[in-house]
Amino acid sequence: MGEEKKEPYEKVDPRYYSRWYNEVIEDSNLTDKRYPVKGMNIWRPYGWKLMSNIDSKTTGYMKETDHEEVKFPLLIPEDEFQKEADHIKGFGDEVYWVTRAGRNELDVPLLLRPTSETAMYPVFDLWIRSHADLPLKIFQMVNVFRYETKQTRAFTRMREIHFFEAHTCHETAEEAEEQIKEDLEIMDKLAKKLCLPNLQLKRTEWDKFPGAEYTVGVDSLLPTGRLLQIAGIHQYKTNFAEAYDIMYEDIDGEHKHVHQTTYGMSARLVGAIVGIHGDEKGIVLPPEIAPIQVRIIPITYGEKKDDILGYCRGLKEDLEAADIRVDIDDREDVRPGSKFFDSEQKGIPLRIDVGSDELEKETITLVRRDTGSKDEYDSDNIVEKVKEEHHAMEEEMYRKAEEFLEDNIVDVENMSEITEEKVYRIGWCGSRRCGEVVEEKTDRHILGTLYGEEEYQGTCLHCGEEDVEAAYLCKKE
Amino acid sequence: MGEEKKEPYEKVDPRYYSRWYNEVIEDSNLTDKRYPVKGMNIWRPYGWKLMSNIDSKTTGYMKETDHEEVKFPLLIPEDEFQKEADHIKGFGDEVYWVTRAGRNELDVPLLLRPTSETAMYPVFDLWIRSHADLPLKIFQMVNVFRYETKQTRAFTRMREIHFFEAHTCHETAEEAEEQIKEDLEIMDKLAKKLCLPNLQLKRTEWDKFPGAEYTVGVDSLLPTGRLLQIAGIHQYKTNFAEAYDIMYEDIDGEHKHVHQTTYGMSARLVGAIVGIHGDEKGIVLPPEIAPIQVRIIPITYGEKKDDILGYCRGLKEDLEAADIRVDIDDREDVRPGSKFFDSEQKGIPLRIDVGSDELEKETITLVRRDTGSKDEYDSDNIVEKVKEEHHAMEEEMYRKAEEFLEDNIVDVENMSEITEEKVYRIGWCGSRRCGEVVEEKTDRHILGTLYGEEEYQGTCLHCGEEDVEAAYLCKKE
Repeated sequence: MGEEKKEPYEKVDPRYYSRWYNEVIEDSNLTDKRYPVKGMNIWRPYGWKLMSNIDSKTTGYMKETDHEEVKFPLLIPEDEFQKEADHIKGFGDEVYWVTRAGRNELDVPLLLRPTSETAMYPVFDLWIRSHADLPLKIFQMVNVFRYETKQTRAFTRMREIHFFEAHTCHETAEEAEEQIKEDLEIMDKLAKKLCLPNLQLKRTEWDKFPGAEYTVGVDSLLPTGRLLQIAGIHQYKTNFAEAYDIMYEDIDGEHKHVHQTTYGMSARLVGAIVGIHGDEKGIVLPPEIAPIQVRIIPITYGEKKDDILGYCRGLKEDLEAADIRVDIDDREDVRPGSKFFDSEQKGIPLRIDVGSDELEKETITLVRRDTGSKDEYDSDNIVEKVKEEHHAMEEEMYRKAEEFLEDNIVDVENMSEITEEKVYRIGWCGSRRCGEVVEEKTDRHILGTLYGEEEYQGTCLHCGEEDVEAAYLCKKE
Repeated sequence: MGEEKKEPYEKVDPRYYSRWYNEVIEDSNLTDKRYPVKGMNIWRPYGWKLMSNIDSKTTGYMKETDHEEVKFPLLIPEDEFQKEADHIKGFGDEVYWVTRAGRNELDVPLLLRPTSETAMYPVFDLWIRSHADLPLKIFQMVNVFRYETKQTRAFTRMREIHFFEAHTCHETAEEAEEQIKEDLEIMDKLAKKLCLPNLQLKRTEWDKFPGAEYTVGVDSLLPTGRLLQIAGIHQYKTNFAEAYDIMYEDIDGEHKHVHQTTYGMSARLVGAIVGIHGDEKGIVLPPEIAPIQVRIIPITYGEKKDDILGYCRGLKEDLEAADIRVDIDDREDVRPGSKFFDSEQKGIPLRIDVGSDELEKETITLVRRDTGSKDEYDSDNIVEKVKEEHHAMEEEMYRKAEEFLEDNIVDVENMSEITEEKVYRIGWCGSRRCGEVVEEKTDRHILGTLYGEEEYQGTCLHCGEEDVEAAYLCKKE
């Protein structure tokens, strides 16, 4: 660490990381940061394709689990927003207010949704009558707005956020708990495709979602040694149902409040992928969601030019027939070196180089973006080979990031050992008092306790109580 | 007309239409109008699927014509908005203003985009350097906001609008003109799939898009005899390019302003489909975009129940294998009559009824939503039959609506003949003075002159000039 270079799956200095991150994002054409409002960026075509591919994966998992897609309005009346006390306290300071329309001052100011609980729940009350209407499982993909006061950063800390939110209502607490587990399974599947290993941590009382009973934060480790939250899964119990009066009639005719959960993700998924897998040459995209999965580069010097181009077009057709997203960089006035460079900057998983050598032997040279490995194969097997390499690449990107995460979790029994940018596993008695002391003294956050099985036990870092639960302490990105 | 019944492709009284429209929209579960902000509705799952299917079609046509998808921010700074004078004049009275964020008054108020010219064009200047960057062809699908002061109506007159907008930049006026033609071809293809015959009218000077050189409005005729604009295609020439300083270097090194066009559509497409094709039983959806294209209804009395259900599931698998969107209404406690009714309310194009008769003979009874026709077919051919019927239905829905449009265009040579809710084709000398007099005296709008070939010529309805162009005069929905 400290060396001014971004190697994938190695630690890097946060200041260098920041510079590097901004550069590769610009070079890859994912987004344009020059929009004249702070914290609001433009999705360029390449970035929007990437985000749309991630959204399609998410949508697929949602539909498999019987969630239905909806679209609620953006603007929320002030009075609806103010019904759940903790929720207002949590979001009140970061909402944008519409106060005027045309030449009129609005009677009731409208806020831009920072999340959609307070837009949806007044209507849930109308949608749900009896147990036959439950479970209600919906999701939407929308823009949300938060007046972020810290330094903004593309994808990970924005004021306009591309957001996914699922909302569910259930008859019982048990069914709501099952929903949380289903959400975490979906998260696991998605994380595999996005090559984002993570920790699923039950947040502390003072760090949970405003209005929630508890929150599971899903955190990925950035090369800076800081954790980036990439998803939040929330158990509301009947907190919001009570505030918004969402009742159902059970099988015995009794009226009860519904139990609710939510699951949120955002464009941060893109930020995590860029940060974790990128290198000095640019971003590296997981094969399943890459807008271009294979780029063919014809190396056309001399008289074989037309034959090589024809050969490339044939390869492209074969790959397209197998539903692989492929293009050819056939720009006339650009040298192969620049084309390689461009393909690397954009993080395209596989490159196929074709020169007169390959043409003659009816082979291809396949180059992997993550490892840089170069292998020659018969062109007959191209579809199979590409699929194999995509699969291997996905596996390896996940595994390497997972190793990096595991290598950077350090068990400590003493605050004085906490000096680096790592994830520290500590003993914590669970009290707010001890937690806050530890956070203050170490200048880090307790990100929570493992939602799943935890093998580690320790001694509370502050009060010294023995055999207490393990908590994860780290800086937040 | 005047009879209190909504027959498809027949005239209906506007007041009755209004009541009918609101009812069928509610019954079909497309949208929920009970959201507590006027003019902002909730897309329910069924409605959002329909809109998404329309959006996918549009996206397909856009990609075929080399447009790329982007996503620009929602909020526009006041100073950027104010650069094109006519544009502000046109939209100034109907924008929503964000003036506060958290506890701060904003230094520069931000407006919610009513359309995205003023969000995009400051950046186009950065994206375009030379002729090599042209043409620039992008589109996005976003929510836009207009503070509509008239009575709002689901899909057709909303304050939050689901919006499609394509923006292009070209080197020359000719290329921009070609773009307009390409847009109109896309419109024709889409209109066929949506069964929305229309008039493509070059709007009057005083009715064009604010900032445009000219506007082609695409209008469909509602059963009320009023025209509903379903798309707008705009030639900007260099009007915005001059205001936003969007220049390119041409092949000779000269710096010139780009020529721009836009193409906009919205959720109005849904409103037009509902209004034109619906009948007393509910909405009728064009087969290609219907969320459910076929519904199978098992009629399960007596002992054959399980066999019938099994038979239905087999049919469903066959149809799904052919990528047809199909479901089975296998609710236990609902009678067939109610199931038929539900399928009709939702506008599902085809119904397959299966009782013990069909089971025994290995047939199906196919019922068409638009005509109500009922035919029995061998189950062997089910995929082919369904595709045939879908195709026939699309053709016929388009044709009938086209006949209704043609039947309701009336040539007149005298203002006194203008008494009904119809589309009047009149002679118009083209002067603003005559146009405005005609509009005022007839209490109708001149929606423009045909963009394509026009065979009709007439005498100006006001000044009496002979052999002048034909214009279309009608009430606007």
